[in-house]
Amino acid sequence: MDEFSFINSIKQSYYRQPTLIKGIGDDGAVIRQISKDIVMAVDTFVEDVHFSRKTVPLHSIGYRALAANISDLAAMAATPAFFLVSIVIPPSWSEDEILTIFEGMKEHASLYQMDLIGGDTVSGKELSISITVIGYTNKRQTSWRSHASEGDIVFVTGTLGDAQAGFHMLMNDGNYKSKAYFIKRHQRPSPRINVARELGKLPRVALNDVSDGIANEAAEIAEASNVNIILYEDRIPVSADFEQFPKDLQEQWKYFGGEDFELLGTVSEENWDIVEDIAQKTNVNITKIGYVKRPSKGAGLVYLQHNNGKILLSKDEYTHFK
Amino acid sequence: MDEFSFINSIKQSYYRQPTLIKGIGDDGAVIRQISKDIVMAVDTFVEDVHFSRKTVPLHSIGYRALAANISDLAAMAATPAFFLVSIVIPPSWSEDEILTIFEGMKEHASLYQMDLIGGDTVSGKELSISITVIGYTNKRQTSWRSHASEGDIVFVTGTLGDAQAGFHMLMNDGNYKSKAYFIKRHQRPSPRINVARELGKLPRVALNDVSDGIANEAAEIAEASNVNIILYEDRIPVSADFEQFPKDLQEQWKYFGGEDFELLGTVSEENWDIVEDIAQKTNVNITKIGYVKRPSKGAGLVYLQHNNGKILLSKDEYTHFK
Repeated sequence: MDEFSFINSIKQSYYRQPTLIKGIGDDGAVIRQISKDIVMAVDTFVEDVHFSRKTVPLHSIGYRALAANISDLAAMAATPAFFLVSIVIPPSWSEDEILTIFEGMKEHASLYQMDLIGGDTVSGKELSISITVIGYTNKRQTSWRSHASEGDIVFVTGTLGDAQAGFHMLMNDGNYKSKAYFIKRHQRPSPRINVARELGKLPRVALNDVSDGIANEAAEIAEASNVNIILYEDRIPVSADFEQFPKDLQEQWKYFGGEDFELLGTVSEENWDIVEDIAQKTNVNITKIGYVKRPSKGAGLVYLQHNNGKILLSKDEYTHFK
Repeated sequence: MDEFSFINSIKQSYYRQPTLIKGIGDDGAVIRQISKDIVMAVDTFVEDVHFSRKTVPLHSIGYRALAANISDLAAMAATPAFFLVSIVIPPSWSEDEILTIFEGMKEHASLYQMDLIGGDTVSGKELSISITVIGYTNKRQTSWRSHASEGDIVFVTGTLGDAQAGFHMLMNDGNYKSKAYFIKRHQRPSPRINVARELGKLPRVALNDVSDGIANEAAEIAEASNVNIILYEDRIPVSADFEQFPKDLQEQWKYFGGEDFELLGTVSEENWDIVEDIAQKTNVNITKIGYVKRPSKGAGLVYLQHNNGKILLSKDEYTHFK
């Protein structure tokens, strides 16, 4: 594979972002931004760890990899603007296959007017895609994990567990209901950028995107804010046909499944009506699923409240690398 | 390996950059920069492709990986400020070994007051390190590849081929002169940030860092500027004990060796005295090695001028992924 011609084939013919001074084609990209804050995040996807050609078409591998990054920007209430892609390519992959992955990324990027402004292409034994995203926030709009406070309402957008259910359907033949819906949630997730931008305008909001399951995401907010979070077992939103799966899988997926790229957040009770307005305006369901409590000692814990009392949501499920 | 405790062990206890609003610990890092342009680049290093534990100690693997990225900022005449690290970790690597690589990066970062502001840690079969760097430039200071112009002087900092010579010494036992010097050039290279910042103040300058060998770097400038570059064979600067190696290796290393992280540039003849002042001020040798020519047709070529005429420097050596 010739690196020069490869870069030419992924290079955009024009750039959309007015703040870009220099895109692909030099030692670095250059951005000029005066009035907004710049948000940055990076995520890496390894073949057969984070995705598989068996369950996701090449185009969707790219679409989904960028989704995970855009979702990080959503959790920061940022507007996506740029991305850089560093890719490790094994000899068994053809240039056409790699270009198809890039097409998937670029299709997703175009929904947000994002520009591909740099990257690196190297050879290796294992396909891995590392994406750096850059977005903008207004200076007074922050949605940090540390913003949760005693008495806050805990909410989540959309439904949980769908992406894992879709993955399960792809791995296990069967006669499933709403198969296309669940598979799409796995292969081509939609990060909640529009909702996040509205939520970011609240006087105080904590946001985390559900990449590793809400048990993990809630714990991150609880730790950063030095509070505990209590979730109501019977309020976790799931989609209509989610109940077709065995109970233990449902439990596993909705608390620990991840990759739904929904948003988990906390707001003060007095701002809840604004959240309801945002849900209506953006046409996205937002569900009250719990509350924030400041413990007398210790913090950073997540409890599941059910009929017979509270149980601690275990961390074991999500504290190891994946 | 526990991801939470791992992140805590690489997280800086304080940040040095005043423009940082939010570092590690949320979905993204946040920067506020009003008066300068922001420069970004990403590079990925794969074990046994870009580095080997056999020739580079773990600490220096980190030091060297960041060097390659800092060198991209140098080529953009930018001042380094931040970096994000995404690392794919195979099960055979211990947490201590990975932390040692991070120590090497952080030692190098501290020379430039750079802050580690984000990243990702994932598992895979092959160790790979992807680094995104962010730096600042003054708005009127650019050193783009497209800035070369007919009649310009072509120059290079320091000496070429040393990193490859050091690598050769590590791979082939022998009784070598200046062994420590050459090995250091391979294991712990020093990007030319200080020189680059001064060169960036010139009215017009093209810069490229020598990561893939000057034949490649000169071709990139020639292509972007739509000119040809002629290099004088007898003026390519090499270090004192470089001649101890066979002639064919010397040729290979100085034109195609790369990883010296010197700077190759072009300036107008009338600004050459400023370049000489910069060399003196920064205590770095800068050597005139050729000139820029606008061809009547075709462009983007690099010629080597020697006693008997000109030969085209082949591209075959550097156009494939590595």
